[in-house]
Amino acid sequence: MGRTSDSRERILGAAQTLIELHGYSALGVAEICKAAGVPKGSFYYFFSSKEELALAVLDEHWSSQRDSWNRILRSDDPPLQRLRELFEATEAGQRAGQQSCGTISGCLFGNLTLEMSNQTDVIRERLQEIFDAQVDMVDDVVSEARERGEVGVADTHEAARSVVAQLEGQVLFAKLYNNTRNLGGLWRDCLALLGATASGRTA
Amino acid sequence: MGRTSDSRERILGAAQTLIELHGYSALGVAEICKAAGVPKGSFYYFFSSKEELALAVLDEHWSSQRDSWNRILRSDDPPLQRLRELFEATEAGQRAGQQSCGTISGCLFGNLTLEMSNQTDVIRERLQEIFDAQVDMVDDVVSEARERGEVGVADTHEAARSVVAQLEGQVLFAKLYNNTRNLGGLWRDCLALLGATASGRTA
Repeated sequence: MGRTSDSRERILGAAQTLIELHGYSALGVAEICKAAGVPKGSFYYFFSSKEELALAVLDEHWSSQRDSWNRILRSDDPPLQRLRELFEATEAGQRAGQQSCGTISGCLFGNLTLEMSNQTDVIRERLQEIFDAQVDMVDDVVSEARERGEVGVADTHEAARSVVAQLEGQVLFAKLYNNTRNLGGLWRDCLALLGATASGRTA
Repeated sequence: MGRTSDSRERILGAAQTLIELHGYSALGVAEICKAAGVPKGSFYYFFSSKEELALAVLDEHWSSQRDSWNRILRSDDPPLQRLRELFEATEAGQRAGQQSCGTISGCLFGNLTLEMSNQTDVIRERLQEIFDAQVDMVDDVVSEARERGEVGVADTHEAARSVVAQLEGQVLFAKLYNNTRNLGGLWRDCLALLGATASGRTA
């Protein structure tokens, strides 16, 4: 049984793993507590409902992914190079997940969007905030690349959304085929979507 | 109670609607039978399991969507124009779904890929076949456009996969924001991903 001090983290960790393996609907409180090694009472001490837990899992995962995206997308490298590093990190992350559990679990946010966003407004709104933030972060980089004359898009925000959509679509295929190979094409697709100029393509 | 002759269709129709609303895991046989207006015995007369039902729903939906894609992608219009019509039909279909049930349900195949593909090999394989077929159909059109000098991609199959990935990613956003607006950018994104030449862009 976990110490009270780390029970919340254990519940969150177990819930994230179980959501990645079986989705949100299939998840039961008893199963989460068993996997986390905490008594059922602990769950309701920390979370009033499964939905509140799902929001906490989203927040925890986004907090960690946002740090990683910020580290990559706000580095001193040239802007398009940073996007390339984001795709490489995404591919490496999916490959590491595959090696540890045998199957690619995809993007937690994309998974929950397609499973849950039309069922629960509070989860839909949180997922919207997360994807809005991702698009804004990519937009900052695309805008910087445009100032340097490296991309030719008219609307950097729409272009950033297309880049994130391509990321989600290719991660969907990676999950479907349990193969990270497709993620290797993200850089090429990104250059195309952004209308990268000759100088941008050397990044 | 439905006549025996149409019970299977009623079960399939109810199951598809319920999967689009709540996903596969949340689906119960009793709920399906209630929505279909058939006794529970009918279900097990037609389907040995929920998984077999899911496969039948996939097959039924793909059979109908494949007919629609073939009608559009094999028409006499110029190749890139056909892709544009595919995106317009996708947008119109999502908008019609939104008008009839208040919320965009997205792509049944994408939804089930992210919810189920890492859980059930038989469903994963069927979804792979469907997406393989979609990519092949788009590839045929891209190859034709390349022969006409309208696109500049080196690998038409990889490019077709990127176009389908973009479609899935933007449909994910349409579902997340319950807004078909983003699907309006698919044509612009497709031209970019295919490296459309000046003659291609006039399609």
